[in-house]
Amino acid sequence: MDKIRFEKGWSKLMEVDGEGGQRVIDSLKDIAPDLGKYVVEFAFGDIYNREGLDLKQRQLVTITALTVLGGCEPQLKVHLQAGLNVGLTKNEVVEAIMHCAPYAGFPRVLNAIFTAKEIFKVE
Amino acid sequence: MDKIRFEKGWSKLMEVDGEGGQRVIDSLKDIAPDLGKYVVEFAFGDIYNREGLDLKQRQLVTITALTVLGGCEPQLKVHLQAGLNVGLTKNEVVEAIMHCAPYAGFPRVLNAIFTAKEIFKVE
Amino acid sequence: MDKIRFEKGWSKLMEVDGEGGQRVIDSLKDIAPDLGKYVVEFAFGDIYNREGLDLKQRQLVTITALTVLGGCEPQLKVHLQAGLNVGLTKNEVVEAIMHCAPYAGFPRVLNAIFTAKEIFKVE
Amino acid sequence: MDKIRFEKGWSKLMEVDGEGGQRVIDSLKDIAPDLGKYVVEFAFGDIYNREGLDLKQRQLVTITALTVLGGCEPQLKVHLQAGLNVGLTKNEVVEAIMHCAPYAGFPRVLNAIFTAKEIFKVE
Amino acid sequence: MDKIRFEKGWSKLMEVDGEGGQRVIDSLKDIAPDLGKYVVEFAFGDIYNREGLDLKQRQLVTITALTVLGGCEPQLKVHLQAGLNVGLTKNEVVEAIMHCAPYAGFPRVLNAIFTAKEIFKVE
Amino acid sequence: MDKIRFEKGWSKLMEVDGEGGQRVIDSLKDIAPDLGKYVVEFAFGDIYNREGLDLKQRQLVTITALTVLGGCEPQLKVHLQAGLNVGLTKNEVVEAIMHCAPYAGFPRVLNAIFTAKEIFKVE
Repeated sequence: MDKIRFEKGWSKLMEVDGEGGQRVIDSLKDIAPDLGKYVVEFAFGDIYNREGLDLKQRQLVTITALTVLGGCEPQLKVHLQAGLNVGLTKNEVVEAIMHCAPYAGFPRVLNAIFTAKEIFKVE
Repeated sequence: MDKIRFEKGWSKLMEVDGEGGQRVIDSLKDIAPDLGKYVVEFAFGDIYNREGLDLKQRQLVTITALTVLGGCEPQLKVHLQAGLNVGLTKNEVVEAIMHCAPYAGFPRVLNAIFTAKEIFKVE
Repeated sequence: MDKIRFEKGWSKLMEVDGEGGQRVIDSLKDIAPDLGKYVVEFAFGDIYNREGLDLKQRQLVTITALTVLGGCEPQLKVHLQAGLNVGLTKNEVVEAIMHCAPYAGFPRVLNAIFTAKEIFKVE
Repeated sequence: MDKIRFEKGWSKLMEVDGEGGQRVIDSLKDIAPDLGKYVVEFAFGDIYNREGLDLKQRQLVTITALTVLGGCEPQLKVHLQAGLNVGLTKNEVVEAIMHCAPYAGFPRVLNAIFTAKEIFKVE
Repeated sequence: MDKIRFEKGWSKLMEVDGEGGQRVIDSLKDIAPDLGKYVVEFAFGDIYNREGLDLKQRQLVTITALTVLGGCEPQLKVHLQAGLNVGLTKNEVVEAIMHCAPYAGFPRVLNAIFTAKEIFKVE
Repeated sequence: MDKIRFEKGWSKLMEVDGEGGQRVIDSLKDIAPDLGKYVVEFAFGDIYNREGLDLKQRQLVTITALTVLGGCEPQLKVHLQAGLNVGLTKNEVVEAIMHCAPYAGFPRVLNAIFTAKEIFKVE
């Protein structure tokens, strides 16, 4: 059953994060493989697979969370691309990040915008 | 023109936060009235008035930001009610908060959920 | 199998947090029951059940994490009691919190110490 | 010599925080007395006693740090009073807190302003 | 009038941050030009233009806020230079950062000091 | 006496952090030498020298604090090596970092694990 949970998580990870997500899991293999397993099972198998919000809404929440936390540029890169993957426009992503300014301040927002600039360029 | 900006902000504040927003601005009058003015003008006149995201999307972003920051229970109360005001269902709000668990951890999520429990009860 | 995972998690939750943990899960039942399920399954079934660190070491890590995050007084209360449950002495708990001062500053440490004072009194 | 360091710290604590500072140290006596000793010796004996900034400048820095950290209302209360003790005006304290809005966002600033409102009222 | 607000903000930005500030606004032009506009209008037109604190005091508050937030090295670089621009001495800036140690811990302070070391070298 | 305190701190710093700790103190000499002195005296002379927790327990607490704070990669590198120096196994360090996932979320944990991967490779 946990195999089913992992597989459900993996196929959601592929749908949302694609190649960027796979690279994170792969890079954990030699140091903390179970951490990769938990990311797949819990974040994607349990949470992303839930009903109640569609993937575009979930991606807005993830991008906001990573912007506000700060210091999550590697994860933000994966999830900015994921935003586009699930159908958010670049403009919607930029708007969501800018919307954080009154709540988390300009520095966190500027860092996320410059990360988006980097990702949207290479797309 | 700044009067126009304040008025645009005020009518957006009323639309989004309603009475809860007014109470915050009122309670600033004797200590830092200009702070209330900036909340109205910048957060609501400038940011909430932008196109590119609808009010339900903006409210998802605000609730996520406040959940992740932590220690923002008073602001979260206003914006949980605001989520319902702009048309999010209670279930969507709860899902958005739960979606933060893999990114910000259970404690921030539990605090926000118990705040939601309090607000949704009195509604 | 997920049932096994939940049961493993539940019995670990009872061993570590006891009654305080049960109260958290119970209080989620009417607002976000699946969040309680994830706390049991992921935090206790997956993580606390792992080998590699004993429960006293895990409790040191949890108490430190909650001290440093700040604003987690409700969770800290449960886990300070849990520290005693798994065999840490009150002195070890106080030392662990004080050890955070050079890393997270005095305010976070003072807040955690005063929470400990409250818990250790009622024990 | 450490006695000298403690005494230097204590007299600086009295000058800056006064009664509010003494209450913090006293309340640590039965749970973590050495933590109180370190607050006196390090924060007040070492840092507050340094040259290079006067006490009004140091108090601006402390109030800003506590505002931005969030969740430090008990410490903020002591240091808002301390701001007045060392000669800052209420208006300067309010301006310093408001100045944090573009950097740390409105919620942290609102929480600090409402704490100031409470302290300035009882003075 | 908003034009006046922008112009007031721009001339304050030039006075405080100079070239470093202009570079930030320029680099936003192709991804989120309105974010640059809000930084100029709100942070500099509204906040930095206020009376009640002089520019040296405001710069102490900004540097403290960025030190405590953490992960704001790009913004800290601009504002460390700005500290010197408005008349703070290098020693006052270093003292302000060090003063944060008892409140935010050594790691945040060390990161800010090493950023200052980099900026003060190139000046 | 303070000389004794510094010497006690220095010999503890050498025991715990070794060469990595010395490099931090050395790199402060031309910008903020007293900050290095305080790290030695307070963090190592006062705190690390205390009884009540052994060095392996203290290192678990330090690594957890730095993981949860985020943005402390330089300090984490020194203290991951220090973990091995005082007798923690690589597996215990990885377990402690992974244990933070339910409390601080995956991004902070992933950043710390990738820092550990870098340090454990060069060892």
